[in-house]
Amino acid sequence: MEIAAETQKKAGFFAYGWDCLKSSKTKLVQVAKNAQKQGQDDPRKIIHSLKVGLALTLISMFYYFRPLYDSFGVSGMWAVLTVVVVFEFTVGATLSKSLNRGFATMVAGALGVGAQELASLFGEEGEPVVLGILVFLLATASTFSRFFPRIKARYDYGVLIFILTFSLVAVSGYRVNEIIDLAHQRLSTILVGGATCIIISIFVCPVWAGEDLHNMTVRNMEKLAHFLEGFGGEYFKEPFDGESVVDSKDDKSFLQGYKSALNSKGTEESLANFASWEPCHGRFRFRHPWKQYLKIGALTRQCAYHIEAMSSYINSKIQVSAEFRMKIQEPCTKISSESGKAVKALASAIKTMTDPSSADPHVENAKAAVKDLEIALNAASLDETDLLEIIPDATVASILIEIVKCMEKVSESVHELSGLAHFKGVEPNVTPEKPQLLHRGTIKPIPDGDATDVIITIDEVSSVPPENDKGPSKGKQDESRVNMG
Amino acid sequence: MEIAAETQKKAGFFAYGWDCLKSSKTKLVQVAKNAQKQGQDDPRKIIHSLKVGLALTLISMFYYFRPLYDSFGVSGMWAVLTVVVVFEFTVGATLSKSLNRGFATMVAGALGVGAQELASLFGEEGEPVVLGILVFLLATASTFSRFFPRIKARYDYGVLIFILTFSLVAVSGYRVNEIIDLAHQRLSTILVGGATCIIISIFVCPVWAGEDLHNMTVRNMEKLAHFLEGFGGEYFKEPFDGESVVDSKDDKSFLQGYKSALNSKGTEESLANFASWEPCHGRFRFRHPWKQYLKIGALTRQCAYHIEAMSSYINSKIQVSAEFRMKIQEPCTKISSESGKAVKALASAIKTMTDPSSADPHVENAKAAVKDLEIALNAASLDETDLLEIIPDATVASILIEIVKCMEKVSESVHELSGLAHFKGVEPNVTPEKPQLLHRGTIKPIPDGDATDVIITIDEVSSVPPENDKGPSKGKQDESRVNMG
Repeated sequence: MEIAAETQKKAGFFAYGWDCLKSSKTKLVQVAKNAQKQGQDDPRKIIHSLKVGLALTLISMFYYFRPLYDSFGVSGMWAVLTVVVVFEFTVGATLSKSLNRGFATMVAGALGVGAQELASLFGEEGEPVVLGILVFLLATASTFSRFFPRIKARYDYGVLIFILTFSLVAVSGYRVNEIIDLAHQRLSTILVGGATCIIISIFVCPVWAGEDLHNMTVRNMEKLAHFLEGFGGEYFKEPFDGESVVDSKDDKSFLQGYKSALNSKGTEESLANFASWEPCHGRFRFRHPWKQYLKIGALTRQCAYHIEAMSSYINSKIQVSAEFRMKIQEPCTKISSESGKAVKALASAIKTMTDPSSADPHVENAKAAVKDLEIALNAASLDETDLLEIIPDATVASILIEIVKCMEKVSESVHELSGLAHFKGVEPNVTPEKPQLLHRGTIKPIPDGDATDVIITIDEVSSVPPENDKGPSKGKQDESRVNMG
Repeated sequence: MEIAAETQKKAGFFAYGWDCLKSSKTKLVQVAKNAQKQGQDDPRKIIHSLKVGLALTLISMFYYFRPLYDSFGVSGMWAVLTVVVVFEFTVGATLSKSLNRGFATMVAGALGVGAQELASLFGEEGEPVVLGILVFLLATASTFSRFFPRIKARYDYGVLIFILTFSLVAVSGYRVNEIIDLAHQRLSTILVGGATCIIISIFVCPVWAGEDLHNMTVRNMEKLAHFLEGFGGEYFKEPFDGESVVDSKDDKSFLQGYKSALNSKGTEESLANFASWEPCHGRFRFRHPWKQYLKIGALTRQCAYHIEAMSSYINSKIQVSAEFRMKIQEPCTKISSESGKAVKALASAIKTMTDPSSADPHVENAKAAVKDLEIALNAASLDETDLLEIIPDATVASILIEIVKCMEKVSESVHELSGLAHFKGVEPNVTPEKPQLLHRGTIKPIPDGDATDVIITIDEVSSVPPENDKGPSKGKQDESRVNMG
């Protein structure tokens, strides 16, 4: 009995061990699959990892070899630290962190030396008290400043490093000439680390925050366009249950895509912030109007909210009046598809950075279809129709009209962008909101060289919906870049 | 002439200086006002700044005084560094960073020693090569792991510190016994710094991420409730232009409040993540169902999208049919106000952590009002009405019906929360979705002590809309906390 129990126990133990091994194997396989998916989704992630590895290895070796090690001293490790902390996915983020770190270290170091000098005037007993008070005041004030939206958006990391360096220098207990030596070492190592990061980040397969923002804006608009182009067909399709279920399963994705635009605010804002740190790259100039992308993004989101409300009527089980549907089906489908085409044209204009005027006919068509819809509604006689049965269709029609209004605003703001960013084929001095009707044919296009002096009037953001502006959203890009040089 | 020009120049210079002084004075005043506003908005920001100042001063003094300084050596500065980097606004964030930092330093230190030992086997020439390869591999793999949503959400900072410490130890060039000394010093100083932060963060006016999430959820629901309660009156009000403009200006804010719920996803997710690191506090147990708040938040947001679409019909200039409006005004106002009351009751149930059943009558009333509306619509004869004139009202009615559906889902998920979090007056083993109709009066409430074993069935998140799940949103709280101890 006992032996049997023992054997069973042993067998149980081995079985348990085997189970563990098997489950950890499946887990490993899962992790590997996950990793593969991550890499396939965005190969830049793999490249970024390799870049960090490269930068860190370079700096580590730099630090490891004695001749360099001796000249830099222990502070060589600051170079390693800088690389690890400063190297971010996008060039803009890396630049922002490096510059913040370098600048803050300099200012805080100088202030720290000053604080020490000041404290030393108070004698051996007074010194720690004065230093303590100074550290307390500075840390408190700086920490509080990090709550200011503007500072949080652009200089958060700088303030952190400022507090850090000031405290370290002020209480280090070194004498001034020692400190200056130390500061020189630290600054030069930070420079080496930061420069390595910046160089690798810019010159080895760079990931530009600005380009990301540009692509993200385009992608969100394209998704909206897909939805709108397909919506009419999907909503008004005949309910042949058997067939439609089968063939609709694979192409339903276009009905969900727009959802990614609903929550894009945070990402867009941080990308725009990082983009404003970036030098000119590819098709983007140094002061590319990144702020305008945020405006377009907000309007796209506004559209997406309406679409979200409208999408709850797709596949609704409510009985609808066939007579009424027949009357509005055509204009509604037209509105939806023309709006979709307009948004698509606008997205492609941004993508290729060309004149977005090719969207204008579609905008006009959509507006004409709205008129048609209104006429159809006006003419509809409802003598024998149950009102309840027209409600879903009427709602969809009404929301479509709102979407056209939204889409017009998107179009306006894309036209603004095309003017601000000097898209190809755009006359730079025509205010895009009041289009060419008056000027067409009479205005002379100003050559590109003069275009920089042209002031483009833009109605302020009144058309952008007031969104949740708590946090670091407002006026992120107002700051001048000069300070950080 | 020259003198006059000179004088003018001087005057100009002084005027310029004076202007500068004045403008910098106005700027300073502005900054001060801004700071005052920040402090008044949330006095916890001031308290947090003072807490950081306190922690840093304590640690700096600790580091400054020689007896301590001698025993800790240069690594005392790691304590200062830890305080600056780790002290965050909420307890959860501080805990998360401290634990990540401590744990990562330990593991990476051990691995670093191992790497060094391994490399030393390859002789003087092979050593740097092997070390370089190891650093490269580890940095690359770790950086890549930071893209995994789960790791990014909870262990991002830990991985960063892991890379940092490993590189520093591996290439430090110290011998093993020196390293163990160094590691001991570094770990103990990090412990001192981390512990100071944690203690001050928890015991001096703590800011709990969990409580913040709880309050934010309540606040967003209350804002929705305000909108819904006021919407009927606002939308159907008689257009007495002169009067209404005056008295409506001051109470229009309730029409905008809901917008803060539109973009709350990111904040909610990071708060829920930090909350899961927090110990029990106040009314919240250790494993409070923070994830359920995200579900409620997503449904609240869904409601807010519908409200956003509906709000474009307030103050629309379109002529409406008075006859039709008369018929639907009452049920619509009822739906809106009862939904508002229901959401308010749900919000207050979460706020006070009591049984949310008090919302049920309002939910039922709202549903009854939907029925009434449908009857009214059914009965409405439209013989002489222009269809175009009923469209806005019909759309509002239709969206209100959708809002009731949404609100029902919110109510369900609040009931779920009340069961999961053992709200006062909730029978813990009744599945909240299939309410008491069958059981009422026959079931015996299980005493609180046993309640932990009760399994509560919850329909999975199918009712939550698929949102933009790119990034660190999915399954944040699945991870067990045990690993980080």
